[in-house]
Amino acid sequence: MGKMHEAWQGFESGTWANEINVRSFIRHNYTPYDGDESFLESATQDTLDLWEQVMDLTRQEREAGGVLDMDTKVISTITSHGPGYLNKEKEKIVGFQTDKPFKRAMHPYGGIRMAEKACSDNGYELDPEVSEFFTTHRKTHNAGVFDVYTPEMRACRSSHIITGLPDAYGRGRIIGDYRRVALYGVDRLIEDKMEQKETTRSAMYSHVIRQREELSEQIRALHQLKDMAKSYGYDISQPAKDTREAIQWLYFGYLGAVKEQNGAAMSLGRTSTFLDIYAERDLKNGVYTEKEIQEMVDHFIMKLRLVKFARTPEYNALFSGDPQWVTESIGGVAIDGRHMVTKMSYRYLHTLVNLGAAPEPNLTVLWSVKLPLNFKRYCARISIETSSVQYENDDLMRFTHGDDYAIACCVSSMRIGKEMQFFGARANLAKCLLYAINGGVDEVSGKQIGPEFRPITSEYLDYDEVMKKYDAMMRWLAEVYVNTLNVIHYMHDKYCYEKLQMALHDKNVTRWFATGIAGLSVVADSLSAIKYAKVKVIRDEKGLAVDYEVEGDFPKYGNDDDRVDSIAREIVHMFMEHIRKFHTYRDGIPTTSILTITSNVVYGKATGSTPDGRKKGEAFAPGANPMHRRDTHGAVASLASVSKLPFIDAQDGISNTFSIIPGALGKEDQIFAGDIEVDLDCAGGACFSPTLFEGLDGDNSEFAE
Amino acid sequence: MGKMHEAWQGFESGTWANEINVRSFIRHNYTPYDGDESFLESATQDTLDLWEQVMDLTRQEREAGGVLDMDTKVISTITSHGPGYLNKEKEKIVGFQTDKPFKRAMHPYGGIRMAEKACSDNGYELDPEVSEFFTTHRKTHNAGVFDVYTPEMRACRSSHIITGLPDAYGRGRIIGDYRRVALYGVDRLIEDKMEQKETTRSAMYSHVIRQREELSEQIRALHQLKDMAKSYGYDISQPAKDTREAIQWLYFGYLGAVKEQNGAAMSLGRTSTFLDIYAERDLKNGVYTEKEIQEMVDHFIMKLRLVKFARTPEYNALFSGDPQWVTESIGGVAIDGRHMVTKMSYRYLHTLVNLGAAPEPNLTVLWSVKLPLNFKRYCARISIETSSVQYENDDLMRFTHGDDYAIACCVSSMRIGKEMQFFGARANLAKCLLYAINGGVDEVSGKQIGPEFRPITSEYLDYDEVMKKYDAMMRWLAEVYVNTLNVIHYMHDKYCYEKLQMALHDKNVTRWFATGIAGLSVVADSLSAIKYAKVKVIRDEKGLAVDYEVEGDFPKYGNDDDRVDSIAREIVHMFMEHIRKFHTYRDGIPTTSILTITSNVVYGKATGSTPDGRKKGEAFAPGANPMHRRDTHGAVASLASVSKLPFIDAQDGISNTFSIIPGALGKEDQIFAGDIEVDLDCAGGACFSPTLFEGLDGDNSEFAE
Repeated sequence: MGKMHEAWQGFESGTWANEINVRSFIRHNYTPYDGDESFLESATQDTLDLWEQVMDLTRQEREAGGVLDMDTKVISTITSHGPGYLNKEKEKIVGFQTDKPFKRAMHPYGGIRMAEKACSDNGYELDPEVSEFFTTHRKTHNAGVFDVYTPEMRACRSSHIITGLPDAYGRGRIIGDYRRVALYGVDRLIEDKMEQKETTRSAMYSHVIRQREELSEQIRALHQLKDMAKSYGYDISQPAKDTREAIQWLYFGYLGAVKEQNGAAMSLGRTSTFLDIYAERDLKNGVYTEKEIQEMVDHFIMKLRLVKFARTPEYNALFSGDPQWVTESIGGVAIDGRHMVTKMSYRYLHTLVNLGAAPEPNLTVLWSVKLPLNFKRYCARISIETSSVQYENDDLMRFTHGDDYAIACCVSSMRIGKEMQFFGARANLAKCLLYAINGGVDEVSGKQIGPEFRPITSEYLDYDEVMKKYDAMMRWLAEVYVNTLNVIHYMHDKYCYEKLQMALHDKNVTRWFATGIAGLSVVADSLSAIKYAKVKVIRDEKGLAVDYEVEGDFPKYGNDDDRVDSIAREIVHMFMEHIRKFHTYRDGIPTTSILTITSNVVYGKATGSTPDGRKKGEAFAPGANPMHRRDTHGAVASLASVSKLPFIDAQDGISNTFSIIPGALGKEDQIFAGDIEVDLDCAGGACFSPTLFEGLDGDNSEFAE
Repeated sequence: MGKMHEAWQGFESGTWANEINVRSFIRHNYTPYDGDESFLESATQDTLDLWEQVMDLTRQEREAGGVLDMDTKVISTITSHGPGYLNKEKEKIVGFQTDKPFKRAMHPYGGIRMAEKACSDNGYELDPEVSEFFTTHRKTHNAGVFDVYTPEMRACRSSHIITGLPDAYGRGRIIGDYRRVALYGVDRLIEDKMEQKETTRSAMYSHVIRQREELSEQIRALHQLKDMAKSYGYDISQPAKDTREAIQWLYFGYLGAVKEQNGAAMSLGRTSTFLDIYAERDLKNGVYTEKEIQEMVDHFIMKLRLVKFARTPEYNALFSGDPQWVTESIGGVAIDGRHMVTKMSYRYLHTLVNLGAAPEPNLTVLWSVKLPLNFKRYCARISIETSSVQYENDDLMRFTHGDDYAIACCVSSMRIGKEMQFFGARANLAKCLLYAINGGVDEVSGKQIGPEFRPITSEYLDYDEVMKKYDAMMRWLAEVYVNTLNVIHYMHDKYCYEKLQMALHDKNVTRWFATGIAGLSVVADSLSAIKYAKVKVIRDEKGLAVDYEVEGDFPKYGNDDDRVDSIAREIVHMFMEHIRKFHTYRDGIPTTSILTITSNVVYGKATGSTPDGRKKGEAFAPGANPMHRRDTHGAVASLASVSKLPFIDAQDGISNTFSIIPGALGKEDQIFAGDIEVDLDCAGGACFSPTLFEGLDGDNSEFAE
């Protein structure tokens, strides 16, 4: 065993003492908690005062039209600003993105026009020298992408067959392992990165050069992180010595990330059980009381609630609000079978009581049948009281990601510090079906967008013919889509690299190449209609199929009917098989998701009438949901249809928006594992695990493929 | 045949009318001139006035300590400055790098500290905001390189076993085909580049993305070039209509390049015969008189003489002056056997009379036995009068490069618009030999720089043992060297891409990966001494071989003695074989050069005593020269030794500095094909072709391998 740092006194040693390995530290030291919430403490007067101040600033911000203050000259970096406080005397955990709360920082690396617009739309003007500099001398991610896009990519983007691409905003979905800052101190992390740099491959192929440069950038970011903490009076070069330092160090790590990056989802990770180890030690040694610890947690969470970015109204419209996706994953079960609920899991959720309900941070319970009953009851209660808890199925994800993964954004699971995601928004498979019918001509604009394949000319659609053409068109779409994402992520790395977040990752990282699907249930029902009913094509004067008449009934997705559910399943599989055919940037592993929640409306708006009887412009069903009112066989049948989708083909998540009245499940205080959280939604992702309910993860055969 | 633009009236059509192909245009239209210089016109009053102004400014500049004015805030781009004039009324050809003559522009892309130092060393201060920006937000080539260098690379650099690397200055050696601007106009070039972008490979591998981004940058640069010309009142979107426009358009192309890049060698290409076509047409049509045309040429050359960069005293020391290497290649012979001397070849050289002698532009005659006698005589006369003409062997180079190549810097030959060079300075093979003897320990510093191979411990050196160890050490050196160059050129492309110069190249460019050798004759003689005499090793107290005693005589390189000349030849071949083993960036084709002229002194200074009897710190011979005073068998034998070196292994040039008194060759007005030009030298290259003399190109067997 390695030398134990004095800050680690009282901790059980393990692999973690010799190498950067937070999971090992947790496994060796955490204390599962089976008790109930009765130990929890209410907010202190300082907490209440600070929160009142926050509420007041929030009111002012709303009155000011959404933004209270904004940088127009200073470019945000880890060290760009001096320290900022709400009330230095009262804050137990400190740190803001700029030198004062509610002042939004400027992030031009992603795109200068976005930065300009974020200013002007909020009544500010970006410094012209900054604009000039980022136009003439310092290229941005957005500029890089558009230099490379092909006309075909642009056309696919304009016609909305591919949409929501992170080419004008930060991709996000990268979770730094912020716990490393607390456990090891920054000096040890720098040392580790130096060692990593020393041991790269020695032949200077371009990818080796890139890796060495990135490691240098990471090391620089870690040095800057120390400087930033120093400006608040903290030396984070060494490990945190107690709970307060652990929370503070960890938060500084996260704060550095949000100072550097304006990603679409800047998630926190899985920190509660880690921090609980410090709290247990301090409680045992009488260093802090429960009241003091809860106060730190309250202040920490308060800070997370105040993460803000300068964004445009369009961005906020796309993402239904101004979300940061500060997702924190709580609970879950360890590989050794012990549940991972600790007192700190309670304390995090308890902030919803002490500070009131809030969408951020996005508190996400990694749900398992093995979670202790007390905790399940507590979750149910807090969900009912605050509607602010998200649940995901740990029993499913644990098998692919182990017991130290977290959720980025809403459902993207990744091992902390070991995996990251190249986010890829989604492809509109319903429109793709119409392209198959119309030989690549867009049914709305009449423009040739896809390849000039032979269109279907028959009066009635033939299932085999449609499937054959659909397969070919899907292959085309998959290829453009993957190529487009390659361009985006190459340029994001080049012009907007997440150096601090990646500094809190291992040397060799698994990259998920996350594609996405929209319109699945529309496609399934359309193909079912073609197969089991008769679908007549209505063509306009140019011969373009613009509408369909369905004669007779057909099985509809969402009724546990294998005739159509198997089609849905087949479509997902086909799509993924096509995606897998193409080269992915940095050997990203292709995955897909079926996640659209609010954007299903936008997608529907851009898509013509479909053979299932859906009319032009009508909304799609969200995510993998059955089309509205078509799941006529009850909730269980509806859920069963969704559950048949192959997780192995859609590892980045399958969403099912499912609303039920609590009363319907029985007594109001009964365990209630679902929640409804529609404002916590995003176009580029979604919030719900399809396998939220215990009954739904029966399809593990898929996952074990 | 394609549609002939009206500006092309009177020209013979050809491939060039359908595609970007200047060579075809020249081939179809130029008029070889066999007459003498009697047609030449003297300087006009305007020319004399302007030149007086230049001389006056030059005096002022010298009095001001070397720099008259300097940008400290404006960053140089193609369009960063308004127009600048000496005297707008008198200038027939216009354009300066900044808004006034003698004001040096700021080029921070290569390295911000270099830009800062270039300012401060000349008594100026770089704007702190610019410094901050290029430190924090906009990385430079220099910063990128040092982020990636391994400790081994740094050690090789510090110990001077590899030196002169373009990691802190612009690599240069890229010749844009500036003639294209005149012949086609910029719009046609943009159109061509758009077509190139449309036809890249479609799978978005990283190198395809890079190519598409570069093409976008090139297109942007061409648009900027038009804007720049417009600021001078010229619309260069269309082809040049007469001689003046042709010179002006061509010069604008070059001017854009030197506004954008501060490369170590910003060569012009091969423009005289091209421009002569316009002059012949205009003379024939009575558009311009000879007097007027010579005036334009004088003004053009005057502009080229005024190309200036902001540089540091260290840079100037390394390069022995403040050279720009505005090399222009004149004459040569066409593949069809016609010589390519035109009246314009005379006019260019005549500027040395009209304006007086000057080192820039570096007028280089591509020498051939087939050049017309009148021209040979004229060259000889101008050489004798001005010592300002360089000669290179066209009869040799034509076979590898055809008849539309030019010289970049001093000897690097490349097809114009089709080939470019990754410049690589050189490796010290004499020091490498000492490392072989000392097991990788540097004989000067005593530090372990190379791999810890077993040193030689015997009292006397054994040839076979030394060669075996030398081979192994050379392999190591070649690997570090190639890897270092890979890093440099990756970063130069990334942070300091020559977008305008590359816009004036074809889509697919051949890249020469130019390595270099220093200390060849020292090595040859050392190995000869070991083989044919007895060499005793003198070791210091630590056992490090620090000196050698040679007992007996041995054959010395430079005496046409095959026993040692074959060793020199073998060393060059061994080195190249090792270089060829390693991956080169962008599939650069490895070449080498044996070129050091002034830097031979610096190399010698950094190198310990060698087994040939040369003492520690003593200068090496320049380039491939025999060691001073060792070539005792006369000039022909000395030259014969050099001529045995294999051109196929040293395609980037072999230099032989050879000084003779004109009188020694016979009458003073006799044809004199060599010149002595020691101030036109550079550490990273050199000025003379080894095969300058007609008798020296007999070794074509090598070249034809």
